[in-house]
Amino acid sequence: MIVILKPKTPKAEVDSLTKAIKNLGVEVHPVIGKELMILGLIGDTSKIDPNKIEANRNVERVMHVQEPFKKANRMFHPENSKVDVNGITIGGKKIALIAGPCSVESEEQIISIAKSVKASGTQLLRGGAFKPRTSPYSFQGLETEGLDLLKVARKETGMPIVTEIMSTQYLDRFVEDVDIIQVGARNMQNFDLLKELGKTNKTILLKRGLSATIEELLMSAEYIMAGGNNNVILCERGIRTFETYTRNTLDLSAIPAIKKLSHLPVVVDPSHAAGKNWMVDPLSKAAIAVGADGLIIEVHNDPVNALCDGPQSIRPEEYDKLVKELSLIAAAVGREI
Amino acid sequence: MIVILKPKTPKAEVDSLTKAIKNLGVEVHPVIGKELMILGLIGDTSKIDPNKIEANRNVERVMHVQEPFKKANRMFHPENSKVDVNGITIGGKKIALIAGPCSVESEEQIISIAKSVKASGTQLLRGGAFKPRTSPYSFQGLETEGLDLLKVARKETGMPIVTEIMSTQYLDRFVEDVDIIQVGARNMQNFDLLKELGKTNKTILLKRGLSATIEELLMSAEYIMAGGNNNVILCERGIRTFETYTRNTLDLSAIPAIKKLSHLPVVVDPSHAAGKNWMVDPLSKAAIAVGADGLIIEVHNDPVNALCDGPQSIRPEEYDKLVKELSLIAAAVGREI
Amino acid sequence: MIVILKPKTPKAEVDSLTKAIKNLGVEVHPVIGKELMILGLIGDTSKIDPNKIEANRNVERVMHVQEPFKKANRMFHPENSKVDVNGITIGGKKIALIAGPCSVESEEQIISIAKSVKASGTQLLRGGAFKPRTSPYSFQGLETEGLDLLKVARKETGMPIVTEIMSTQYLDRFVEDVDIIQVGARNMQNFDLLKELGKTNKTILLKRGLSATIEELLMSAEYIMAGGNNNVILCERGIRTFETYTRNTLDLSAIPAIKKLSHLPVVVDPSHAAGKNWMVDPLSKAAIAVGADGLIIEVHNDPVNALCDGPQSIRPEEYDKLVKELSLIAAAVGREI
Amino acid sequence: MIVILKPKTPKAEVDSLTKAIKNLGVEVHPVIGKELMILGLIGDTSKIDPNKIEANRNVERVMHVQEPFKKANRMFHPENSKVDVNGITIGGKKIALIAGPCSVESEEQIISIAKSVKASGTQLLRGGAFKPRTSPYSFQGLETEGLDLLKVARKETGMPIVTEIMSTQYLDRFVEDVDIIQVGARNMQNFDLLKELGKTNKTILLKRGLSATIEELLMSAEYIMAGGNNNVILCERGIRTFETYTRNTLDLSAIPAIKKLSHLPVVVDPSHAAGKNWMVDPLSKAAIAVGADGLIIEVHNDPVNALCDGPQSIRPEEYDKLVKELSLIAAAVGREI
Repeated sequence: MIVILKPKTPKAEVDSLTKAIKNLGVEVHPVIGKELMILGLIGDTSKIDPNKIEANRNVERVMHVQEPFKKANRMFHPENSKVDVNGITIGGKKIALIAGPCSVESEEQIISIAKSVKASGTQLLRGGAFKPRTSPYSFQGLETEGLDLLKVARKETGMPIVTEIMSTQYLDRFVEDVDIIQVGARNMQNFDLLKELGKTNKTILLKRGLSATIEELLMSAEYIMAGGNNNVILCERGIRTFETYTRNTLDLSAIPAIKKLSHLPVVVDPSHAAGKNWMVDPLSKAAIAVGADGLIIEVHNDPVNALCDGPQSIRPEEYDKLVKELSLIAAAVGREI
Repeated sequence: MIVILKPKTPKAEVDSLTKAIKNLGVEVHPVIGKELMILGLIGDTSKIDPNKIEANRNVERVMHVQEPFKKANRMFHPENSKVDVNGITIGGKKIALIAGPCSVESEEQIISIAKSVKASGTQLLRGGAFKPRTSPYSFQGLETEGLDLLKVARKETGMPIVTEIMSTQYLDRFVEDVDIIQVGARNMQNFDLLKELGKTNKTILLKRGLSATIEELLMSAEYIMAGGNNNVILCERGIRTFETYTRNTLDLSAIPAIKKLSHLPVVVDPSHAAGKNWMVDPLSKAAIAVGADGLIIEVHNDPVNALCDGPQSIRPEEYDKLVKELSLIAAAVGREI
Repeated sequence: MIVILKPKTPKAEVDSLTKAIKNLGVEVHPVIGKELMILGLIGDTSKIDPNKIEANRNVERVMHVQEPFKKANRMFHPENSKVDVNGITIGGKKIALIAGPCSVESEEQIISIAKSVKASGTQLLRGGAFKPRTSPYSFQGLETEGLDLLKVARKETGMPIVTEIMSTQYLDRFVEDVDIIQVGARNMQNFDLLKELGKTNKTILLKRGLSATIEELLMSAEYIMAGGNNNVILCERGIRTFETYTRNTLDLSAIPAIKKLSHLPVVVDPSHAAGKNWMVDPLSKAAIAVGADGLIIEVHNDPVNALCDGPQSIRPEEYDKLVKELSLIAAAVGREI
Repeated sequence: MIVILKPKTPKAEVDSLTKAIKNLGVEVHPVIGKELMILGLIGDTSKIDPNKIEANRNVERVMHVQEPFKKANRMFHPENSKVDVNGITIGGKKIALIAGPCSVESEEQIISIAKSVKASGTQLLRGGAFKPRTSPYSFQGLETEGLDLLKVARKETGMPIVTEIMSTQYLDRFVEDVDIIQVGARNMQNFDLLKELGKTNKTILLKRGLSATIEELLMSAEYIMAGGNNNVILCERGIRTFETYTRNTLDLSAIPAIKKLSHLPVVVDPSHAAGKNWMVDPLSKAAIAVGADGLIIEVHNDPVNALCDGPQSIRPEEYDKLVKELSLIAAAVGREI
């Protein structure tokens, strides 16, 4: 940690601040020049709240040198983490494919789509039961009935199921019924939810918030891991920018960035990012090329009549063709599908 | 609602789509030219999900003409709404001043600050008991003990208390103990929380999310109001942009925008927006000048030792001076403090 | 300047880098811990290119502690700068009012508007002759004929004229005919243009780019000042964000920020920021309240038929009423109009 | 074009507006409901300035349905455009590789790098002679001497040269000496420069501005093409967002978006986007996978001593390895290198 002092801070005040910081249990190395006055802090700075130091009127700024996340940090876990879900490994050489409809709508729909995507090589089934919708007047999902239908689809196909949790209210239900619990972009900093998920041993798919930095995403993963649950998969799904042609801007450079900073697996959701079904194909290819460990793709057998997000869903036959093409890209970067 | 078709959509398909939309219970007026093919939808379009229409392969885009919020919409409630909290009116001629520390730290601290800010003319006391922090290793607030201390401060000073809720877990406690329940920026789209708050009759202070559009803020207010609770106050607290000098960019044009679109009162939080205590003064003045109904300001008697957010807190004597100067601005725009 | 090294950089490499940096003419103070390895650079670091140091494979990051601008820096010029234009002072106690149409359209139009705004207390006349338009098919301004008409209006009213330059092609003409040369947002980093303007002694009104940070704005001012021309006025006119309700987001916190960092006068353009004429009133008031030294406002006698930007222009009678109300705000913050 | 009227606009005013618009030479189709009042405009709306209609007090908004660009529009040129530069085709099946140093530094440097990258399969040589730098105190490029050195390198290697123009001052020189004239991000809306380039028949590499939308990029291309020069190549190089880990956020979804909207070739600059040399590899692969027609990559034989942008340059041996791997990705998407 580096404390930058205001120019011309009197020596007595530098000394007094130095002493106060030393009392926090770290070494303080001053570097004092005419135009640069800094204090270098060495030792365990993780418990020091930079805000408290910054509130000192002589302090210009406090800077982290190390990333503030620990359990999610590659520095303390140089190997890639692999997450196992019912025998399926995420984060290994094999790309994880997660596919399914935006919303579970009926038993027939979810089973039909599940079978199609399984036939194309998908390992995990996604489907929304509880849906976060901007408008209170939009369809909010089949809720617990949706969970029941996902279980039926799992039984029929053997595919583990991934679905989004929206509050702690149904946490027990999710822990019992669901294989991967998804935290949506809007809840990425719902810290109370993250804490509760940290107490479970379920695999959590944590989506990046619309305006969350990469560091904030990793800090939210840290909330879950700090509770003892290391089964975290990150998901890039587009960030909010000034560009309006796409619904969000898929930040593919976040993938190598996360891989450098953290050991956690990371998947990409090209469907929500663009909000346009014809972009799912090129963005999926780019995601594999850039190093993602998996994809989560919306597939619907009848997009025109989908109860939500039809414009971004692709049809099973388009998905099947895409998976075949993705396997070429995967091979080109030393992975497989 | 306007449906823009792709150029050269065959007439048969236009007819078939027209018929399908008519079945949703609205009139359809086609405007068909060589380069422009649109369907104008007239009637109650509020239950039509634009995504479903957009999923049609002949549809280029669907556009709202009307705002998607109703109860929050000024069109259906032309007069300004006023919210009454224990006899204090928010949204009237008098500017509402809400002040207090970022976090409740001790009985002595909260009572001392409460008395100071009351003496300066503040009507409502703010203080964090549950704190949303980016890091799981940062101080998370005194939690229920903090609520107890706020109640003591209310008893001592008579000021209603405003504090942030972070999940539904303590909802009953908040309903019983707190006068205004604050929903923080990170939870603005925690829809399950909003729904539960909509079932109470408590006044809700809803903060704009870091990357929420004005329309999304109003849609989140709509979630609360759709549940039957019209006691909603909106709060602009800065949005996330590329600029890094300030912590967030205070969007003061959002105030006249919200005033035009909605009848709800709106207050400004200059402390969190800038993250710099010396900016609280000019930004507070600008907020009153631009038309805000109130301010929520962090005041701390000992910013250097504040347990959180010291750098943005001002001291009681600075606050007192500021309130005096704000009264001149208020008068200049036909308001009072 | 602070050089942050990668953890575990071998001592030999630290020494070799230290030596290389010393050869650049500065002192190097190493602070070496297990998790923090930094080099503090003391002396004249202004000629050191941080990129060159950052390219070293052992370097994590190089950080400026001081702002990279000098002539624009308040540190080296603690007093506010005042710019004098034909006897009118900008940056003093009196708020500078600059008003006029988006585009000069005809002699009658510019003279009529000039007379109206002068009668309301305006000191400087604005009017576009060369217009930067997104589309090559839009009206591009009357160009040199527009300059001629501005001169006629100046002669009629005695008001100095402010108009935008778009390239160096007409620089001599601008230097001879114009009182304040405006550099538009899109040209804020047209460095060749800035360099040429730095060789003149004309007053330059430098608008902030749509996505320029405050530091970049000051660096562009530095380009002009480095050439010897200190007559620079800065202008905040809205930045590009995700919010689409307003055309741009007026960043009013930039005003106190610039005032802290620099001694240069700064004015606000509320017309272009919002793109909505009904927002000019509240945003102008907020701009004065937050500390701006002036306003630049679009006024048109016939907005419906304006050749450009009609939706953001206000009528002379609206402007007249606004100026009267602004004088109350100005008085409330110790300024005058 | 669609004109949305304010609700409850009186019939007389609708009629009067309708008549006024008809006089502009288009058909007007009104769709009038209680909550929706629109005018659909059919015919050649390209000469209608939406701002003029929006300035009418009864008008809520005017919306384009068609894109405002014509010559750049795929609708009017369904086939992909191919640009030929000295026998090298850009926009065909073969991926164009453009590589070289950020700045030309010396004859030895540019020739050495040119030979290396040529040996790796590069077709075109890039190198900055005039450099846009944020600070007036940074190295500004070797300028005309740099152009001379590029010519020497071309003579030695036969590779066409690509370099950035910063103003019209040296236009004749560029037209005579340079094979592809690059317009940098900061000059994307330097309309006077674009107009002048439109009068030449040189190939122009037009970089997207830091905060330019895809539509604005295409409108800037339109400026060049409107002048008669159709030899335009677009370049995505990262946009400015809130994320600070990368210098800019590479918007790879812009590639399929541009391919859908326009027939022009588009290349990607992964070096400037990320500002980190270790990201060039994955981002280049993603760019090819997503459909780019080429790459422009910074290669330097001695990044530590590069006169600018060292941290983002890769070494010739890294580049050579990358090209080999890229050829696998290219093959996977039906292209070749």
